[in-house]
Amino acid sequence: MSLPTAGFSFRVDAVDGDARCAELETPRAVIQTPAFMPVGTQATVKALTPEEVESTGARIILANTYHLWLRPGAESIASHGGVVGFMKWPHALLTDSGGYQAFSLAKHRSIDEDGITFRSHLDGTLHRLTPEEAMRVQALLGSDVAMVLDECPPGDAPRDVIESAMSRTTAWAARCLQTEAAEGQARFGIVQGGTELDLRLAHLQAIAAMDFDGIALGGFSVGEPPVRMYELVAEIAPAMPSDRPRYLMGVGTPTDLLRALSSGIDLFDCVLPTRNARNGQALTWGGRVNLRQARHRDDESALDADCDCSVCTTYSRAYLRHLLKADEMLGPRLLSLHNLHFYGALMRKAREMIRLGRLQTWVDTTLAYMRERDEVGD
Amino acid sequence: MSLPTAGFSFRVDAVDGDARCAELETPRAVIQTPAFMPVGTQATVKALTPEEVESTGARIILANTYHLWLRPGAESIASHGGVVGFMKWPHALLTDSGGYQAFSLAKHRSIDEDGITFRSHLDGTLHRLTPEEAMRVQALLGSDVAMVLDECPPGDAPRDVIESAMSRTTAWAARCLQTEAAEGQARFGIVQGGTELDLRLAHLQAIAAMDFDGIALGGFSVGEPPVRMYELVAEIAPAMPSDRPRYLMGVGTPTDLLRALSSGIDLFDCVLPTRNARNGQALTWGGRVNLRQARHRDDESALDADCDCSVCTTYSRAYLRHLLKADEMLGPRLLSLHNLHFYGALMRKAREMIRLGRLQTWVDTTLAYMRERDEVGD
Repeated sequence: MSLPTAGFSFRVDAVDGDARCAELETPRAVIQTPAFMPVGTQATVKALTPEEVESTGARIILANTYHLWLRPGAESIASHGGVVGFMKWPHALLTDSGGYQAFSLAKHRSIDEDGITFRSHLDGTLHRLTPEEAMRVQALLGSDVAMVLDECPPGDAPRDVIESAMSRTTAWAARCLQTEAAEGQARFGIVQGGTELDLRLAHLQAIAAMDFDGIALGGFSVGEPPVRMYELVAEIAPAMPSDRPRYLMGVGTPTDLLRALSSGIDLFDCVLPTRNARNGQALTWGGRVNLRQARHRDDESALDADCDCSVCTTYSRAYLRHLLKADEMLGPRLLSLHNLHFYGALMRKAREMIRLGRLQTWVDTTLAYMRERDEVGD
Repeated sequence: MSLPTAGFSFRVDAVDGDARCAELETPRAVIQTPAFMPVGTQATVKALTPEEVESTGARIILANTYHLWLRPGAESIASHGGVVGFMKWPHALLTDSGGYQAFSLAKHRSIDEDGITFRSHLDGTLHRLTPEEAMRVQALLGSDVAMVLDECPPGDAPRDVIESAMSRTTAWAARCLQTEAAEGQARFGIVQGGTELDLRLAHLQAIAAMDFDGIALGGFSVGEPPVRMYELVAEIAPAMPSDRPRYLMGVGTPTDLLRALSSGIDLFDCVLPTRNARNGQALTWGGRVNLRQARHRDDESALDADCDCSVCTTYSRAYLRHLLKADEMLGPRLLSLHNLHFYGALMRKAREMIRLGRLQTWVDTTLAYMRERDEVGD
């Protein structure tokens, strides 16, 4: 069905328990969900070309408003045809609001009812992020999907702090919706509520009542035990509007993704596959592989025998380990490519299993297999 | 004609003045010369895949014996099918002797008549490099072409130091030739002599008298003015055996290459195109471009309008500058790819001009055009 914004539609075409397969159409792409969005913080998925990112199956990526607003600047990016024109990404783009980074990266930040004031972590210049400014900047960045400005309380925040963040997030969401929408840009609301189920459900009700094209869960994966997140998402996701995309922000590990999509989440983003790649960690069908370990020194075998990406079909573990030990850029590059290929394949397989009505068995088997072989330990 | 080592041949098929086009055949590749060999110090041309290096036209690359000997170790590399099997490079490989790096990188190095003793710059372990050991290690690395161990005196060395380095290099060359040759591995001798023409010619005579498959000029580009190198190479190169490949080691800039190939040099290697890329400098048909400069901030144009590489046909200068300013790995990666493409194209065009008998006019015009537009200044 059509979403509130012209040019966007969302059609669920298979369900299996709470999980579902859908097609999310934006002006720039048709996205099969459940889908993982690789993170291209500074208008580049670190170390990779758009062509390579596309080869992993991704049709939508995420860029960070905070970073691009500060450098090279939103107006500059707008003059280059937005983020997609600037970086030559041929598919869809989602931008966050900048709020999370303004809080976690910036210096001297303070929050009030009207917005967030912070100093750039790059040059100390003073900036002011309001719900309206977040929408204005994202319009300049030209994303297919813009996120509302929200307040994300710390993982261990007391109940009253969570409630106050919820009220503010609701008020800001309304202000975001009141700003004139950019042509061809959908807007997603964000649900907060920490790890309190009643607060989550109450805030979901408030946000779902607004005319958003999609609903996101913010404030997860901020320090709570993964199992607690799975329990909460299992309760919350099925209560989210079924006719709009559901996005679990900043999540996560392969296990996180399989658990959450089993509960009906459609979209994910996370720096983990690319960040861990830069630290020498590969995510594979056989669990995590730490390529810096000595055991791989003479290992002629592929990184992941069950992966058909160009890294796994070309190079040995011994060579990949050598690149990492020798601090060669090709190491993080190849591991990033593999990790995103693996995430793409994981989503593809999950969609296939949902269509076959065999998701849960497959998820349990797959996670048990990975856990057994995991080199790092949970 | 066939070179001394079985499986190798060298056939000059066009001359223009002192310059020549030839085909160098090794067991793994047919190399059109004049040719530039990208440097893959640690069994990787920094930031690039073998497929990308191949796309620049390169059919032979150089790897550094010193680095690979210390990490991951020559025996380890041998067990992976040599450097080419380890890194999956599908064409030919040349290795240096390790002597130059043992002198410039290692700690506490000392030289005597029998060889070089040094401590690894990685872990301080003690190593001994003799002519025989240099050949043994290169046999394990499995290169198509092995270089003899030589002594390269500093650029400002007095005449007696140069003469002593020449004698030692001659003695070591003879010892290298006396070691049993590795199957399918050619050996090149090295001519020293600093910036003294008479010494260079004398040493050339000594080295050319031996049964090497090719002759290299070492000890250039070590601090002397480029013009002095051009003058010397113009005298020395034509005196080198015309039926064997002539290799100018560690050189150089686009100007260096065009001047030296005009004098009859066939092979070059240099870290410049990849190292400068990592510092934000592009080499183009319009001279050097420093992409970090503010002038490129809003520049929608291609890095090099006369280049057909994927970087120049895809990205803007503004985007490349952004990647560099934001310390994104994709920046050095794309610039390395372009710079090697440019070097490949420069060699291709030079070969074409030699065949047409129009090399000198083209070299003069090309260098004048580059110099006029150069952003860095010589």
